[in-house]
Amino acid sequence: MSSTCGQCLKLSIFGQSHGEAIGVTLDGFPAGMEIDMDRLLAEMARRAPGQSALTTSRKEADAPEFLSGVLGGRTTGQPICIVIRNTNQHSRDYGDGVDLVRPGHADYTGHVRYFGFEDWRGGGSFSGRLTAPIVAAGALCSQWLEAQGVSIACHVQQLGSVRDASFMDADPAADYTYMKKMHLPTLTAGLEKQMEAEAMAAREDGDSIGGMLECMITGLPAGLGAPFFDSMESVVSHLLFSVPAVKGVEFGAGFGFASMRGSQANDPFRMADGKVVTTTNHSGGVNGGITNGMPVIFRCVIRPTPSIGQAQQTVSLKSGENAELAVRGRHDPCILPRAVPVIEAIAAIAVMDLWKERAACLM
Amino acid sequence: MSSTCGQCLKLSIFGQSHGEAIGVTLDGFPAGMEIDMDRLLAEMARRAPGQSALTTSRKEADAPEFLSGVLGGRTTGQPICIVIRNTNQHSRDYGDGVDLVRPGHADYTGHVRYFGFEDWRGGGSFSGRLTAPIVAAGALCSQWLEAQGVSIACHVQQLGSVRDASFMDADPAADYTYMKKMHLPTLTAGLEKQMEAEAMAAREDGDSIGGMLECMITGLPAGLGAPFFDSMESVVSHLLFSVPAVKGVEFGAGFGFASMRGSQANDPFRMADGKVVTTTNHSGGVNGGITNGMPVIFRCVIRPTPSIGQAQQTVSLKSGENAELAVRGRHDPCILPRAVPVIEAIAAIAVMDLWKERAACLM
Amino acid sequence: MSSTCGQCLKLSIFGQSHGEAIGVTLDGFPAGMEIDMDRLLAEMARRAPGQSALTTSRKEADAPEFLSGVLGGRTTGQPICIVIRNTNQHSRDYGDGVDLVRPGHADYTGHVRYFGFEDWRGGGSFSGRLTAPIVAAGALCSQWLEAQGVSIACHVQQLGSVRDASFMDADPAADYTYMKKMHLPTLTAGLEKQMEAEAMAAREDGDSIGGMLECMITGLPAGLGAPFFDSMESVVSHLLFSVPAVKGVEFGAGFGFASMRGSQANDPFRMADGKVVTTTNHSGGVNGGITNGMPVIFRCVIRPTPSIGQAQQTVSLKSGENAELAVRGRHDPCILPRAVPVIEAIAAIAVMDLWKERAACLM
Amino acid sequence: MSSTCGQCLKLSIFGQSHGEAIGVTLDGFPAGMEIDMDRLLAEMARRAPGQSALTTSRKEADAPEFLSGVLGGRTTGQPICIVIRNTNQHSRDYGDGVDLVRPGHADYTGHVRYFGFEDWRGGGSFSGRLTAPIVAAGALCSQWLEAQGVSIACHVQQLGSVRDASFMDADPAADYTYMKKMHLPTLTAGLEKQMEAEAMAAREDGDSIGGMLECMITGLPAGLGAPFFDSMESVVSHLLFSVPAVKGVEFGAGFGFASMRGSQANDPFRMADGKVVTTTNHSGGVNGGITNGMPVIFRCVIRPTPSIGQAQQTVSLKSGENAELAVRGRHDPCILPRAVPVIEAIAAIAVMDLWKERAACLM
Repeated sequence: MSSTCGQCLKLSIFGQSHGEAIGVTLDGFPAGMEIDMDRLLAEMARRAPGQSALTTSRKEADAPEFLSGVLGGRTTGQPICIVIRNTNQHSRDYGDGVDLVRPGHADYTGHVRYFGFEDWRGGGSFSGRLTAPIVAAGALCSQWLEAQGVSIACHVQQLGSVRDASFMDADPAADYTYMKKMHLPTLTAGLEKQMEAEAMAAREDGDSIGGMLECMITGLPAGLGAPFFDSMESVVSHLLFSVPAVKGVEFGAGFGFASMRGSQANDPFRMADGKVVTTTNHSGGVNGGITNGMPVIFRCVIRPTPSIGQAQQTVSLKSGENAELAVRGRHDPCILPRAVPVIEAIAAIAVMDLWKERAACLM
Repeated sequence: MSSTCGQCLKLSIFGQSHGEAIGVTLDGFPAGMEIDMDRLLAEMARRAPGQSALTTSRKEADAPEFLSGVLGGRTTGQPICIVIRNTNQHSRDYGDGVDLVRPGHADYTGHVRYFGFEDWRGGGSFSGRLTAPIVAAGALCSQWLEAQGVSIACHVQQLGSVRDASFMDADPAADYTYMKKMHLPTLTAGLEKQMEAEAMAAREDGDSIGGMLECMITGLPAGLGAPFFDSMESVVSHLLFSVPAVKGVEFGAGFGFASMRGSQANDPFRMADGKVVTTTNHSGGVNGGITNGMPVIFRCVIRPTPSIGQAQQTVSLKSGENAELAVRGRHDPCILPRAVPVIEAIAAIAVMDLWKERAACLM
Repeated sequence: MSSTCGQCLKLSIFGQSHGEAIGVTLDGFPAGMEIDMDRLLAEMARRAPGQSALTTSRKEADAPEFLSGVLGGRTTGQPICIVIRNTNQHSRDYGDGVDLVRPGHADYTGHVRYFGFEDWRGGGSFSGRLTAPIVAAGALCSQWLEAQGVSIACHVQQLGSVRDASFMDADPAADYTYMKKMHLPTLTAGLEKQMEAEAMAAREDGDSIGGMLECMITGLPAGLGAPFFDSMESVVSHLLFSVPAVKGVEFGAGFGFASMRGSQANDPFRMADGKVVTTTNHSGGVNGGITNGMPVIFRCVIRPTPSIGQAQQTVSLKSGENAELAVRGRHDPCILPRAVPVIEAIAAIAVMDLWKERAACLM
Repeated sequence: MSSTCGQCLKLSIFGQSHGEAIGVTLDGFPAGMEIDMDRLLAEMARRAPGQSALTTSRKEADAPEFLSGVLGGRTTGQPICIVIRNTNQHSRDYGDGVDLVRPGHADYTGHVRYFGFEDWRGGGSFSGRLTAPIVAAGALCSQWLEAQGVSIACHVQQLGSVRDASFMDADPAADYTYMKKMHLPTLTAGLEKQMEAEAMAAREDGDSIGGMLECMITGLPAGLGAPFFDSMESVVSHLLFSVPAVKGVEFGAGFGFASMRGSQANDPFRMADGKVVTTTNHSGGVNGGITNGMPVIFRCVIRPTPSIGQAQQTVSLKSGENAELAVRGRHDPCILPRAVPVIEAIAAIAVMDLWKERAACLM
């Protein structure tokens, strides 16, 4: 019930952080697409740790293998199974295990949910590592969507106190692929250094720092999404909130709507080159749960990684008493750079699911 | 695919705003509960328009009837079907219909999605009226949950420029049932007048105004929610984003996490009366997608109602040209008061679904 | 979890036999179809009791009303809700209720499942009456499918000791619509009288009699159905076994395969007018869970209605002791004539679900 | 949409016959069970080819590895992922591939469904080999169910012209575990030789032969299964019809009901040792879709394996003309022995899904 999602394009993940391998099955993917492996590997590389001083030194091989669904480099239309083997682990780093529960982590909640039988090593199935197969699946989806004219771009709109501009004010027709080459993709040139500085400062304090990602999807047709219970926002947010660390999602003007008048918030319609468009896009491309053809823009907040070097107060499950915890090991002070491709992957998967659902709307 | 949701407690809505009736089927509801009809009617009354000068003058009967699932006033455990008949409609008010598409509404997107065959009258199945059966279903759920010690409280944390305090700083053990009697429930006494003033000002301008609701769920055990794809946040947000006008959802510190350090964001654990609690609650009661026993706190932004009295720019679907639109009829300048019971209902439905899912976790 | 089914075309039923109304919501139905009400009413009439001396004297109005999804007589593409009001009930006839549990019925199992809180009146939600909305929904589906060239025909292949010929030996291109006008549709002319005689004999004995229906679906394209878990047979049988009284389902040669050699069972391929066909059709039109373009032929056995006039041994739930039961009331000695349109409806619903799923198979 | 099934216990299969590996994820399995690996391996061995002269000489390693969900030999309650590597393949044996489509196989239908891009090697994802992970998953389920007092036994009730006795007439309290040690499990001693003789005769003719399996599940409580759309029969048959070669499913008296009177078919209730039982069990332990506590008995027909040595008529997809096909390679004349553990596994999986669903029925 928890490792599968999707209606028409079903995604099922398996494995855990410190097991032999992790993977994903993508069920319902179109047939005949020649997989661009370079593109897929590039996406996975963006997610992998060890990219810079900012991120974990734990290097993962992250080389995906196809167990099924591909023949001669083309998707067959049959379920695609991608497996990624875990090669670089230091289980010794997680030696405190399940006694002193780490604040912000799922040590305690997993312990309760699984009656004490949970696999606590390295985060088990709660680990951010499970986002690796999601990125692989998403890469296939975004490759297919690009062939339909859909683009997905994601940048770091905020890291600590550093704020970037917003897609809400950017030109949707511009080319944002340059972002895929940036470690901390931003709209405004030169912000990367400030962001890195804040992250480094957090690292030096044995601390971590949060931020916010913003994603824009262009090229979508109007008509995707179904009220009530499978609106564009519902389907996307359902997946986004599955990502460890996402604690908030907003579309278009988002929480900014709270202080707006309707006259400000509404997006007037007008004709432009025979196409119906809106003059503004506060609704983030979605009206009544259905896309209207304007760019879909959403934001998600990424909480600071809970693993920090500083001592923290906690409890000992064994003794039932308060205790102090210092978390050893190799930790990211800021996972935002790694989360960017994950969010893009999620957007691609959600869009393809709704794309297929739309294709099944017959007359 | 769109009118049903839920895994273990399935909810299926039917009907439309200007049809004869609307309703909901609740499948998997526990047997043997003596339905508190006064309580249910009170919840529905909170949602109904015509409560005050703030809301629409369109009065609805909103009297629910049980077509199944109830015998001798008790739930049977079999599917419960609740029907609500529409009694007070003015279809003449919607005479512009599907030619001039109203900004912010689903007129255009529904027209595309349903190939021009959509039922455009009064919003059809996009109408907020479909939240009435949701409130009825939610009332049954919250009644059952209260018997398990769970409380759900929701207040208007922001209306335009007026801001209330937050549940994040409130005493979870306090009694917030007084809020159900307030038209604009707030934590801080006396704010209601300011909020009403802002709403009235919007009304006089032929405009509408947005806001933000905050909800707190206390009494939940730890262990509800399943990573990856059915976390507490995923299940709740999926439903919340189904509500017309919700454009953002955040949990705990929410978007505030973006500027936090991990040392600020983490919630230290400690023992209190033999129970594991957290000293702070930035995570909003959820770690790794699973509840930890602390209050679950979330916020959702409510965009200003799109129907405003002012003239707006739009297009004519018939002529394919730009046009101006003035929306006649009876419109809420602010739906926040009516949205409060809807959000509470959604919280109750989501929690019961996960409660049942948890009950199926065996050893 | 139990009142909803379907993947791309979702069906959700509500209500119960002795409640005010019963109904169905069909979610995902194509837009723009002009509903043939005469056709729908004719289908429902075939199902309704009181057609002949064979069936129950309890007459039902069975007039369906559309609560949503229809505008100007055309489907909108939005969820279609059909409600049927119960008008002719004799609750006194079910006065023994839940004390003496009727053999073959769900009195006992429902009592256990719903912890004694079940609605026992008239069979509650177990009643065959819930097949009425299924027939309505199926009528919409079969009307749409006919426009795509798909035909569904169902006959009584066996009633007691009387056996008809099989569709396996019939001409798939022939017109079988004449069956819809027969009370006991058969391939072989003149069998109806023998069948009625067996049924009347059962009635005179205060007994009931079983039989077997056979259904043929022609005009399907190859490619419908998805291995593993949504094969044509899986989807169809899942729905068929939901019908009260169905206790067996077989496709093509069915249980006859048990004594066959592969050389007998295999269907050789050949070209016919540029189309791939099979020379025989033991597989009933399905290979590897996917349709191959040949007629889909299946059979389902209908157990004799459990309600009989003869005294039967049972237990008293109240006293916990053995007891004797005589079931009063108005009972069908043979429900086969009424089951025919139900099976056809089920076939139509299942096929449309898979048709939509197939439409979402993109390249 | 096709590789996942289940409501409360979700099963997701991945891989293909001639890929590197195949596997399954079991989501929702109880925590804390100490896995009996010998038992699991024994179950898988029953399924593996190369057991006797009857079955394929293609030997598979079939050694399952746990990628997740197990720690210290115990289930964690988190998703269990089992991978089985393919070690013994002869892709040369499938050299005709997708040109001459094999009668009875999914070559043609898969070619249509996947637009010509399907993976045709060795049956791809249609292969019976995918039943290996199902057996592994089912072994975990049956181990857990046995601890709850549930037993599942399956025998070959018919192979060609040889017929065994039926569980309908056997003592449910007897111990049938001896069947697991038989290559062709039967109730009647000595039948195995006759069955083997028929199978060998088919093999010598370059042919194959079909049969029928019968399964009995004892120890179930009353109350499992939910009408309408998740009855015990629906859930079980949905899974059974996913197995390649199953073409018919019946419960209890099954198709025998067609010639019965209600007075013969009904199962009278009586008290036995303070428990409600039925004197006969024509309903196969299920009334109204819900178990009544009596043994659940069902049968499924296994069509003869389509791969036979004899020449067959077919078409060439490349030339669009008729052609003759002789299938080389190693083929089972009779897969019944191998199907027995598959059917038992399916029964276990279906029962656990409904067991969990029942556990979520609260009051």
